[in-house]
Amino acid sequence: MGNRTEISTLGEFGLIRHLTEKIELKNGSTLKGVGDDAAVLDYADRQVLVTTDLLLEGIHFDLTYVPLKHLGYKSAVVNFSDIYAMNGQPKQITVSLGVSKRFSVEDLDMLYEGIRLACDVYGVDLVGGDTSASMTGLTISITCIGEGEPGKVVYRNGARETDLICVSGDLGAAYMGLQLLEREKSVFRGEKDFTPDFAGKEYLLERQLKPEARKDIVAGLAKLDIVPTAMMDVSDGLSSELLHIAKESNVGCRIYEDRIPIDYQTAVMAEQFSMNLVTAALNGGEDYELLFTVPLTEHDRISEMEGIKIIGHITKPELGCYLEGRDGGEVELRAQGWNSLI
Amino acid sequence: MGNRTEISTLGEFGLIRHLTEKIELKNGSTLKGVGDDAAVLDYADRQVLVTTDLLLEGIHFDLTYVPLKHLGYKSAVVNFSDIYAMNGQPKQITVSLGVSKRFSVEDLDMLYEGIRLACDVYGVDLVGGDTSASMTGLTISITCIGEGEPGKVVYRNGARETDLICVSGDLGAAYMGLQLLEREKSVFRGEKDFTPDFAGKEYLLERQLKPEARKDIVAGLAKLDIVPTAMMDVSDGLSSELLHIAKESNVGCRIYEDRIPIDYQTAVMAEQFSMNLVTAALNGGEDYELLFTVPLTEHDRISEMEGIKIIGHITKPELGCYLEGRDGGEVELRAQGWNSLI
Repeated sequence: MGNRTEISTLGEFGLIRHLTEKIELKNGSTLKGVGDDAAVLDYADRQVLVTTDLLLEGIHFDLTYVPLKHLGYKSAVVNFSDIYAMNGQPKQITVSLGVSKRFSVEDLDMLYEGIRLACDVYGVDLVGGDTSASMTGLTISITCIGEGEPGKVVYRNGARETDLICVSGDLGAAYMGLQLLEREKSVFRGEKDFTPDFAGKEYLLERQLKPEARKDIVAGLAKLDIVPTAMMDVSDGLSSELLHIAKESNVGCRIYEDRIPIDYQTAVMAEQFSMNLVTAALNGGEDYELLFTVPLTEHDRISEMEGIKIIGHITKPELGCYLEGRDGGEVELRAQGWNSLI
Repeated sequence: MGNRTEISTLGEFGLIRHLTEKIELKNGSTLKGVGDDAAVLDYADRQVLVTTDLLLEGIHFDLTYVPLKHLGYKSAVVNFSDIYAMNGQPKQITVSLGVSKRFSVEDLDMLYEGIRLACDVYGVDLVGGDTSASMTGLTISITCIGEGEPGKVVYRNGARETDLICVSGDLGAAYMGLQLLEREKSVFRGEKDFTPDFAGKEYLLERQLKPEARKDIVAGLAKLDIVPTAMMDVSDGLSSELLHIAKESNVGCRIYEDRIPIDYQTAVMAEQFSMNLVTAALNGGEDYELLFTVPLTEHDRISEMEGIKIIGHITKPELGCYLEGRDGGEVELRAQGWNSLI
């Protein structure tokens, strides 16, 4: 485990300095980052996008099996994902931490290493934050600011009848990764030297522990000059997000079971756990894929885009929201997001 | 206490809807508030200011004596204060809450009532946030976005030799209010029907429980077309903030004990507690007054501004940072902010 430096040896300002001293600003829109009462940004003729996420130990993450560096990376990336879901580009983040005495300076260094790596990969500047004591555990609050081109920011409420419903990547893997980690944790709790065998399941773990935001999809759409009519990222599960789009756009939708993209490792794992594969893919959550709608006229161009699957289409509102099974049967979509509150 | 509605009866999305449904947007720069992956803002030719604060139960507030409505108000106002300290105007906030089962929907309504009131008073839009379960207690994370005029944003690093050091309002009262609340709490813990007698100390309590941000001072400076050379808000204590400005600006400073603005209630309370009054005023913190420097040539105009006191001047860096006492003795300023971390 190496050295352990108590946070108290640095003090509040010393800690902030320590954590932020290596930060190099990358974006022209960042005029002033860490080190004043507020960060100063210049967005000129762009629109400003703002999203925020609060992550609490014991609720959103379990440090028994989540390495701090991965946690930092994921905490940042899930915020970037929200900006991409507006068809925007993330540019700055602020990071606030609440930290109990259990954590050392080295622990926070690991967390920040993950955050910094995510910022490097996605070209984002860390411009501020707040670090304070906490009575219990670790609290991470991240706010991400991004830019959108006026007229090209994509909301949830623009889906229209006959639009195609598209999703990037594949679904359900992050949820299966979580099940896997939880199982190993409960079986082997207490056995210090046990290393669980995750061979052949790396993809599931990666999807859970180190998800990526779909910057490439947003870039791909821009290259083709396609602006989706509605878009969201899949954080609570496909069903839940589709129902949001349907409600906000005042439309119905129909998706097809055999079109839902699922990785083979996800399928194998569902089999092992005796879980319904489609239920996991629809409600698993934490996929951070992009769900979007485009006009029917874009069918051919979208079909040719790599990593995109057309899974159904938008209907009149009175037709409701349904999944058509492989056998032709219909099931009404329900929101049973993985992250049931309180 | 009235009704108690369990948060679980609303669910996550129901709760967010419930808390945000009465929000009316006030600012032209707010294109889209709550209800999508991110808020959308348009800052045209203004600079964007971003500040964030994380408040944890048991560390930053004690619900034994802090009413939730006041807590909501204060949580928002302390963020506005950071934006004013950049010579900017707060325009939007996001609010993320982590909430344990101890809290009911009515509790959160009270908290939001305070946040909404602060937003109304200061003309700020609530544009987003996140609500989640927490294992223990209440966590509040607020990010505030504001606008600054290019060329008129004020940093900490612009103080120059011979500049005047100015502070608004008075100092030390919020700290005395905290001491008062803590004393009553420890003396009367457990006696349910006891109502502490705070007569004659209302100002101290108000400064602690319901502070205001100095929007009026920023407006007053703008009216006189005075742009401070450096500015901060006094959250950790005058000494700590002055040392920040001195360090960032690479200057020294000299302030005078008899110039430090102190309310008579603060003085009476310090006497009762046998505390050093000047120490409390220098290190008390949570005053949320503005500390700023202006060129010496502004002496006459600043002197005439209501609610501003000139407390000293900026010196060469090699002269250090000193307080000159009433007796002519000198004490070196040290940062011993009230909010010692961890």
